[in-house]
Amino acid sequence: MNEFTSLTHLVKRIADSTVRRLSAYLRFLEDFENRGLSTISSEELAKRGGTTSAQVRKDLSFFGSFGKRGLGYSVPELAGRLREILGLGREWRVFIVGAGKIGAALAQYRGFRQRGFTILAAYDNSSDKIGKKLDGVAVRDIEHLERDIQREKPDIVVLTVPGDQAQKVVDRVVKAGVRAILSFAPTQLHAPADVAVKTVNMAMELEGLSFALTNRD
Amino acid sequence: MNEFTSLTHLVKRIADSTVRRLSAYLRFLEDFENRGLSTISSEELAKRGGTTSAQVRKDLSFFGSFGKRGLGYSVPELAGRLREILGLGREWRVFIVGAGKIGAALAQYRGFRQRGFTILAAYDNSSDKIGKKLDGVAVRDIEHLERDIQREKPDIVVLTVPGDQAQKVVDRVVKAGVRAILSFAPTQLHAPADVAVKTVNMAMELEGLSFALTNRD
Repeated sequence: MNEFTSLTHLVKRIADSTVRRLSAYLRFLEDFENRGLSTISSEELAKRGGTTSAQVRKDLSFFGSFGKRGLGYSVPELAGRLREILGLGREWRVFIVGAGKIGAALAQYRGFRQRGFTILAAYDNSSDKIGKKLDGVAVRDIEHLERDIQREKPDIVVLTVPGDQAQKVVDRVVKAGVRAILSFAPTQLHAPADVAVKTVNMAMELEGLSFALTNRD
Repeated sequence: MNEFTSLTHLVKRIADSTVRRLSAYLRFLEDFENRGLSTISSEELAKRGGTTSAQVRKDLSFFGSFGKRGLGYSVPELAGRLREILGLGREWRVFIVGAGKIGAALAQYRGFRQRGFTILAAYDNSSDKIGKKLDGVAVRDIEHLERDIQREKPDIVVLTVPGDQAQKVVDRVVKAGVRAILSFAPTQLHAPADVAVKTVNMAMELEGLSFALTNRD
């Protein structure tokens, strides 16, 4: 047991917005690493993340003490700790359910592999797609979804099926043992409390922009 | 000038998370409309949105008074007001820059058209793609981006170019007059304060899940 797992009772209550900032800090640190820089200040992290240095220090303080006053953070050390906190030190196994255009876009997305997310397979119910490949990822018959989950134990299911089929797939994969779902279906999903569900709703993102355009000065 | 535009000084300070909840409430109301139901309580909206009825009332109170105590909200009236607040009463003109797989997935996404977002054109710098169609949307030479922005005045640019090209495209479209950008590029973007920028980072969404899986009990 390391110092992070002992913090789970705290970590559980950390907001999504904090996790997103940690992901963003890690990106800036990796950019610094690539440029051969060895330290970074909380001010610099704040400036790049569009936040305040107090917020940066607060975000990082959840996970122990980092950095020395006046010296800033060690870039490789802080990057390593953030990778550990974010669960990026290992391989995460991913199934994609829904081999349409969004599924295809995700199958070829290099950012996933770079972060240790390995796409094992994609699933569809269309005989036009089953047996084909999506950018090197085999498309399998959705009939075998439960059997394959039990055999291959994916950590995460990415859901790119139409909205009216999404809940049915969620119910199936949760019953088969999956505990994390990333959904691109434009619909509200229900899952037990111990299943982490994140939804990316592209129309909702555009509505955020139409709201901003409508309500500007 | 209607009662909403007179509220812009208030509206500007409304958080992204509030706007996302308003979008979600609208979806539930439309589901109710489709089922022929005429009223809904704040409790019902809260239950479907995974929030509290106090939060629902607070979110809606920014925009005037809705509903009658004990009677709930009129579904068509509240849906209409939310559409107006979210800027969905009109057509929004969209250019997609980057005609790769994500661009193609977005061009065929029906949710956009249903909400009044019209994709006018897509842009790319590859001669393999220029002149072709993405699900009915013409792919044009990115050389003509500024000229076309001035002629066709898109409200929103959706950015699906590789990360290392994203900032350059942002600079070009902002200079040409665009004031709202939705980016799928996995990179931090800089734009003037009067430009609304939203970023969908798919690797970051997966990191939210790996964090949850790593830090669970």
